[in-house]
Amino acid sequence: MPKIVDHTERKIHIAEATWRVILNQGMRGATVRNIAEEAGLSLGALRHYFSSQHELLAFAMNLVKERAIARVEAITRCDLPPKEKVVRILLELVPVDEDKMAEMEVWFAFVFHRKYNEESFAEVDDGLHAGIGKLIQFIDSLELLRHDVDKEIESERLYALVDGLALHAMLDPRRLDQERIVQVLTHHIDSICRD
Amino acid sequence: MPKIVDHTERKIHIAEATWRVILNQGMRGATVRNIAEEAGLSLGALRHYFSSQHELLAFAMNLVKERAIARVEAITRCDLPPKEKVVRILLELVPVDEDKMAEMEVWFAFVFHRKYNEESFAEVDDGLHAGIGKLIQFIDSLELLRHDVDKEIESERLYALVDGLALHAMLDPRRLDQERIVQVLTHHIDSICRD
Repeated sequence: MPKIVDHTERKIHIAEATWRVILNQGMRGATVRNIAEEAGLSLGALRHYFSSQHELLAFAMNLVKERAIARVEAITRCDLPPKEKVVRILLELVPVDEDKMAEMEVWFAFVFHRKYNEESFAEVDDGLHAGIGKLIQFIDSLELLRHDVDKEIESERLYALVDGLALHAMLDPRRLDQERIVQVLTHHIDSICRD
Repeated sequence: MPKIVDHTERKIHIAEATWRVILNQGMRGATVRNIAEEAGLSLGALRHYFSSQHELLAFAMNLVKERAIARVEAITRCDLPPKEKVVRILLELVPVDEDKMAEMEVWFAFVFHRKYNEESFAEVDDGLHAGIGKLIQFIDSLELLRHDVDKEIESERLYALVDGLALHAMLDPRRLDQERIVQVLTHHIDSICRD
């Protein structure tokens, strides 16, 4: 196996250890020392892959995003009725199962960490706002979108709805379960589409 | 002035100092020591009003909620067309000015602190889910709500929309400004009401 794969695989292994540390201890626990321990590596070995905590966090967060994008792209290639496809894509962005719940917790913890720290992390952006804009364009390109809607406002509304559902599902998963999330999203997409 | 007022005023003074500490340093900085310093009190004097950090945080968070409720109740007493009244109430729950932005930051910081700590804080609940349910009931009681909507699903959708907008306004206030928030909320309320 070429060394480049080894190197990338090891970085992914460390990123996954980072997620576990954040899930168990919050961002406060996400020190290089704790992450090395969780990954079963010495501090020196970890520093071989990431020269700073900043670089490690940025990599770990971008990996969350890449995995979500890969799932969304897999759905775009599926043969599904358009409205169903849109709802299926949105469901990849809301924590409806344990894996996604973990991703979402890690992501929110990171977003708040970034807000209250001086470091900029400009290299990490969830791309959700732009992605939702593309989804509204997709609905419109199929001539499904109602004529009387403003696409910018609809993008803003759907973006807020998705992150609001994600937040509530994370904070109160028993109340806001998968079935209810599907109902709300399906109803929303129906309401912006023509009869 | 009776002593009870003095006592309550002093507690409010300490709660406001707590908010400033959270705004400047995040929850991590919200130690009893830092809060006493910000309030200009000795640790002993602060302990006279709050016997634990838990009690102090619960009081400070409930005060955020009480102030929001007071603002909402003032609007319910205004003579306004019903749909405008609903939008005005929703705008009290989203950070459209500096004061509300500060409240929202403090609230989100606390909600995430609570999630990652063992203490339960069952005595603190923003009441937003129940409040939004009442707002949908209010629209319906005026026979404004569309007949074909499910009130439970509409409450869930509006609740997620409001918190999603609040989150985005907090994280990206330049993009999501007051004008845009008003547009999204007005459009949403129009869309669930009859023509």
